[in-house]
Amino acid sequence: MLVGFGNVGRQFVHLLDELSPALAARGIEPRVVGIVTRRHGALFDEAGLDAVAAARRVSGGSVLGSAAPPSLPDLVGRLRSQRVETRVLVETTTLDIRFGEPAISHVRAGFAAGAHVITANKGPVAFAYRALAREAAAAGVSFLFEGAVMDGIPVFNLVRETLPGVTVRGIRGIVNTTTNFLLSAMERGEAYADALARMQAEGIAEADPSLDVDGWDAAAKTAALANVLLDANIDPTRVRREAVVPDTAGRARAALGQGRRLKLVATARRRDEGTGEVDAYVQLEELAASDPLAATGGHGNALELDTWPLGRVVITQRDGGLEQTAYALFSDLITAVTRGRGRS
Amino acid sequence: MLVGFGNVGRQFVHLLDELSPALAARGIEPRVVGIVTRRHGALFDEAGLDAVAAARRVSGGSVLGSAAPPSLPDLVGRLRSQRVETRVLVETTTLDIRFGEPAISHVRAGFAAGAHVITANKGPVAFAYRALAREAAAAGVSFLFEGAVMDGIPVFNLVRETLPGVTVRGIRGIVNTTTNFLLSAMERGEAYADALARMQAEGIAEADPSLDVDGWDAAAKTAALANVLLDANIDPTRVRREAVVPDTAGRARAALGQGRRLKLVATARRRDEGTGEVDAYVQLEELAASDPLAATGGHGNALELDTWPLGRVVITQRDGGLEQTAYALFSDLITAVTRGRGRS
Repeated sequence: MLVGFGNVGRQFVHLLDELSPALAARGIEPRVVGIVTRRHGALFDEAGLDAVAAARRVSGGSVLGSAAPPSLPDLVGRLRSQRVETRVLVETTTLDIRFGEPAISHVRAGFAAGAHVITANKGPVAFAYRALAREAAAAGVSFLFEGAVMDGIPVFNLVRETLPGVTVRGIRGIVNTTTNFLLSAMERGEAYADALARMQAEGIAEADPSLDVDGWDAAAKTAALANVLLDANIDPTRVRREAVVPDTAGRARAALGQGRRLKLVATARRRDEGTGEVDAYVQLEELAASDPLAATGGHGNALELDTWPLGRVVITQRDGGLEQTAYALFSDLITAVTRGRGRS
Repeated sequence: MLVGFGNVGRQFVHLLDELSPALAARGIEPRVVGIVTRRHGALFDEAGLDAVAAARRVSGGSVLGSAAPPSLPDLVGRLRSQRVETRVLVETTTLDIRFGEPAISHVRAGFAAGAHVITANKGPVAFAYRALAREAAAAGVSFLFEGAVMDGIPVFNLVRETLPGVTVRGIRGIVNTTTNFLLSAMERGEAYADALARMQAEGIAEADPSLDVDGWDAAAKTAALANVLLDANIDPTRVRREAVVPDTAGRARAALGQGRRLKLVATARRRDEGTGEVDAYVQLEELAASDPLAATGGHGNALELDTWPLGRVVITQRDGGLEQTAYALFSDLITAVTRGRGRS
């Protein structure tokens, strides 16, 4: 069941089709039984519907079906009635990042219906990770969100699946593309307004970029990372923020003149071992050329994990975008189904 | 059963002790039933021996026990006779990197005894990956080698566990610490011989550094990466190599003067999709500052995976060493035991 069918959701169904051999190899036969949108209607078919055709229809501007989007209780009822081996809710609605909704409610609707929930939204994990993780465990389902930070680059999966026993002591990263692009343009002499307009024309920045440039998006990602990797229990309002403003250009150029790069760095560190208390902030920092985060340019993101016993490990995304975010949902789908089998 | 008990093997038993809570949480109770060394004798106790005490004894210069190292058939017999839930052979012998031995023979001895084999040696995977993977599958055991490249940084695990369905089209990386350290020193004006002597004094470079500086170690790692990630079937002799020599200093300084870094880059790329044919080489390249590999300094290593659909993903190790290599064995141990349970 897909809730939300915008660019990411549609890209996801295309990827599901392209990567079907990888699913078949794992004995997974996906069946899309419902698509719910806010403005393009809803479509249900328990026998499985042609999601690729539906994606083309919506991309072409058509509505999906005549059904109105169901209420949350209706959604739970519909999901629960599906006769499938494994129920999965794929959540990709437009997020109000200030509150994490409606994604959080959709996640809970999935749990209530005994469905695994996978989402590309950072809201649920930034605002309510601890509660949702507990509720998922109680419902015996998975709650996965690899796409919330750094698109499809495995960040949460890297720690969960490949670093058993490792303690993450802190994280620092460049996790917001708009501000990173803006700083790179300004250090080369482009004016703030010009760079922003160019990015909006290229579809990199939102029409209203305020959530990016004021550090809010990075703060939400910092809260998500801290909650999952550092056992914190914070929300984005607890993350100190610094904004990228037109006057920042001077600092960016001066830094470059000295062989350094001005970057908006998201940081979270455990205050004491075991308490779950963290210091978390998003601030402008001049990075030396030898810092692996300094080379992050254009569409790139990077995250450094300070760990024991592996020391500092950095994972860098050089190419980001919709297809990568869709892949995050795909890998979460495989994890949820595979893990669900292990349980039963 | 530990075969080889040098620095890495001894660090592994210390880590096994320190991380025992992480094992207990997974229901894993490790029991070291034998330690085989080439020069310090061997020790066996089916009830489980005190490996930490044994490590201290060997580190202090004492021999382990009066038993002579067993022949390969004896080793197989001893392993097979162990009454344990899961048999694991931990291989950390000194490698003859030109042939991959004796590690390859030890890996096969493990398979013959029905044991999972985990090794920090790159020889087996560089020289005989395809055959050994087939033999492991036939024996129903795991063959794992995360420590072969980039110490404990998850490279093979990253792809296997977190990137389902992803195609790796090519890899490029900085995978040899000695040459990377040497190039960094020479670009700052230090002479080749002085830098090498300093590294030998600090224990970074071998007494005979020729396998590092002539690119052989990097070539072996390139073969390992190509065999596992690109479905190749090559050995290190098939990897073209370039050496770091005293004259390289001039190139390194000139590159730095232009804001670039001269690095020994290991590359492997698929020639055509699906054939397993690859181009693989190790060569000196001047990298732009915007290249994430360029910032790799000191003890750092970095690997870029060119993938579909995730684009280019880089994983960087900022701190390398014995403890990291030991961690690779630890994570492989968890993978082998957990996976073995899934099978039964």
